[in-house]
Amino acid sequence: MTRKRQISLGAFLHPSGHHVAAWRHPDAEPDAGVNLANYTRLARLAESAAFDLVFLADTVAVPSEEPDYVSRTTRATLFEPLTLISALAAVTERIGLIATVSTSFNAPYNLARYFASLDLLSGGRAGWNLVTSGSRLEGENFNDLEGYVSHEERYARAAEYADVVQGLWDSWEDGAILDDRASGRYLDASKLHRLRHRGRYFNVEGPLGIPPSAQGRPVLVQAGSSPSGRDLAAKSAEAVFTAQRTLADAQEFYGDVKERTRRYGRSADDIRILPGVFPVVGRTEEEARAKFQVLQDLVHPVVGLNYIQSHLGGVDLSGYPLDGPLPENLPKTEGNRSRQEILLDLARKRNLTIRELYLEIAGARGHWQIVGTPVEVADALESYFREGGADGFNIMPPHPTGLDDFIELVLPELRRRGLFREGYEGDTLRDHLGLHKPANRFVAPAAAE
Amino acid sequence: MTRKRQISLGAFLHPSGHHVAAWRHPDAEPDAGVNLANYTRLARLAESAAFDLVFLADTVAVPSEEPDYVSRTTRATLFEPLTLISALAAVTERIGLIATVSTSFNAPYNLARYFASLDLLSGGRAGWNLVTSGSRLEGENFNDLEGYVSHEERYARAAEYADVVQGLWDSWEDGAILDDRASGRYLDASKLHRLRHRGRYFNVEGPLGIPPSAQGRPVLVQAGSSPSGRDLAAKSAEAVFTAQRTLADAQEFYGDVKERTRRYGRSADDIRILPGVFPVVGRTEEEARAKFQVLQDLVHPVVGLNYIQSHLGGVDLSGYPLDGPLPENLPKTEGNRSRQEILLDLARKRNLTIRELYLEIAGARGHWQIVGTPVEVADALESYFREGGADGFNIMPPHPTGLDDFIELVLPELRRRGLFREGYEGDTLRDHLGLHKPANRFVAPAAAE
Repeated sequence: MTRKRQISLGAFLHPSGHHVAAWRHPDAEPDAGVNLANYTRLARLAESAAFDLVFLADTVAVPSEEPDYVSRTTRATLFEPLTLISALAAVTERIGLIATVSTSFNAPYNLARYFASLDLLSGGRAGWNLVTSGSRLEGENFNDLEGYVSHEERYARAAEYADVVQGLWDSWEDGAILDDRASGRYLDASKLHRLRHRGRYFNVEGPLGIPPSAQGRPVLVQAGSSPSGRDLAAKSAEAVFTAQRTLADAQEFYGDVKERTRRYGRSADDIRILPGVFPVVGRTEEEARAKFQVLQDLVHPVVGLNYIQSHLGGVDLSGYPLDGPLPENLPKTEGNRSRQEILLDLARKRNLTIRELYLEIAGARGHWQIVGTPVEVADALESYFREGGADGFNIMPPHPTGLDDFIELVLPELRRRGLFREGYEGDTLRDHLGLHKPANRFVAPAAAE
Repeated sequence: MTRKRQISLGAFLHPSGHHVAAWRHPDAEPDAGVNLANYTRLARLAESAAFDLVFLADTVAVPSEEPDYVSRTTRATLFEPLTLISALAAVTERIGLIATVSTSFNAPYNLARYFASLDLLSGGRAGWNLVTSGSRLEGENFNDLEGYVSHEERYARAAEYADVVQGLWDSWEDGAILDDRASGRYLDASKLHRLRHRGRYFNVEGPLGIPPSAQGRPVLVQAGSSPSGRDLAAKSAEAVFTAQRTLADAQEFYGDVKERTRRYGRSADDIRILPGVFPVVGRTEEEARAKFQVLQDLVHPVVGLNYIQSHLGGVDLSGYPLDGPLPENLPKTEGNRSRQEILLDLARKRNLTIRELYLEIAGARGHWQIVGTPVEVADALESYFREGGADGFNIMPPHPTGLDDFIELVLPELRRRGLFREGYEGDTLRDHLGLHKPANRFVAPAAAE
């Protein structure tokens, strides 16, 4: 009997909420980004609702060199995710714990060890969200004063990196601890394997000095949606976090990643696709819109402009009237061209002013935004889920009590429809996501079961 | 009024105890090195006794390539310290939290951020124990297949590394969070500083995106006792962990490090010197000796030999009878020559067999070992403390209930003598150690207070 297909839910934790102005909300904690009690409350809340996981993002630099922008954001005032997620492991019992760490500035042996350790600390609840770092401000903190390597090179390195990390996770087989006190033999050393990786970017011996957890190894999550990101996900990842603003985009992404995954000889079920969603929920449409308007009214123009400027590739819009249109003939840029095109299309199709454009997109930072009643939100999620756009969602609570709202208002509706579990059915992150324990590369297939 | 000088106490956590055979003790947990409940119990126990800190060591490789040795040690079965100490931050409230991380394979920006984050997670209780990695097995996990750099080069790099890390900790001044919701200004960005470090080994911009904790910045601990290690401690460290087996050695080390510290323009009180001590405590001498004998009888010859072989610089003693003397004319080796000489002196002076030598030194792994009654242990600690050998001690519990024994039996005696506090008098690790909050390099001295 196969398990009924249900929605996976992540709680993407952000200090006071994901809306860029959430810190100005009357309910926000003044130091929300560096307040363990705040994160503990949110993680336990998500766990009380049987969410699959909590999720932490990361950037290894302050977000800008522009003091006026830096002073208006909480993005420079955050715990480091590995230390925070380890603390959360000690104050939760069932929920999965996913932290983002960039491959760009960390040795794979360290990273493999951090997450293997977190996986044991948490009883098999860890996941690593693999990202690469492409910003100059990040590179400058790591000996790279010239700007970091090309997108393609970053992903080639990240693919080898993921392979080394997964190999190190395999380097200690299950069942190596004998604890034979009489003979003085603690381990069966034949179950520890040297990886002996010799590659283009890395040479790593192994083994890792830490046993596997109850879920075998941490879940590998990937969060880049470029073609090379999709390919890396298809080859190595077990879950994907992505920004998809429309059902059509979500379907294209979902179909493509599942197809690429099959091409690597894996099953489509070996990878879970979780678009981000930014739900502003009210008991009535009016209440939902009013909640959203409170946040929108708090977006400072410096913050709104920064968002669209950086997504248009660093253009300077400060000389243009906020209530006029985007200038014609913006310079084409290298970086993330597709995001630029999405923004330009949106502005032209709906004839938006600069202010309208940033209000349209900056609040949810480019993610799928739903403002509505519990039934409307559930309808939207159900359509992505049933129509080939998602296996679940990474919920991005917009404001300090946004996760409370989602759990109180939307979750009962999802449960009524049989779309979300009533409580945990397993103990590990793999159990929650319906992912199998992967085969170990050092164990012959026949012996893997 | 100055505070009465009292002993600082650390609890150096080791899975089942520091004795090499502790895992074979009947009270040991089978998975003690990867069991969070075990570490939580020990950390809370130390906290209940108002210890200054818990301390975690680290090595970034399994301890040997020799399967027979690897199979007989728990040194390959350990949590990674940063993740473990972060979890312990969430389940303790007052005790200091010191984790070892090597400078050799970590970027200083990452390391500065991990510890700054831990410092905030714990409310100002974090410390970093700086070590460098010199072993081939460690290098081979980090792209270095030829063996790692020379001792001098490692310490030159480590000194620059420590300066970068402390600079990044200073890069965010106190009081930057304004949380001015009305005007939309969260930070005073003028209190964030670019470090702009350009050095021989590192180029790092900063600032770090995380505010200082209640203790200003994490405590820097240093644990190498070579001349370059002492010099690095004198220049940058605020506490030193060291192995000193006799009062005379401890006095030489203490005097030398304090003198070097003064030469850097710092006060002798700016650095706390904490030798390791391995106390086997019994209500009577017989009980203490019996407890020790239980452990000694469990030392497997493979483990004992491995210890002295590696401390003699990698010689192979497997062809010699265990109950005969060390062979003459052992090859002199590069590595850690002073340790080799200590071992050879010990064997010759007391005419020890190979087995007697490893039993003499392997149990406590080269640290100062005291087997005795509470009064004898307190006398020994008091003499180091009063006679210029120590500011305190890092207690290395020998067996699974060794910390319980020390707290139950020795601590009342130390308190009766006025040598140790009855309870915490402050909230941060700096408070416990009697260390001041360091001046920030980006703040003019007049404004520092």
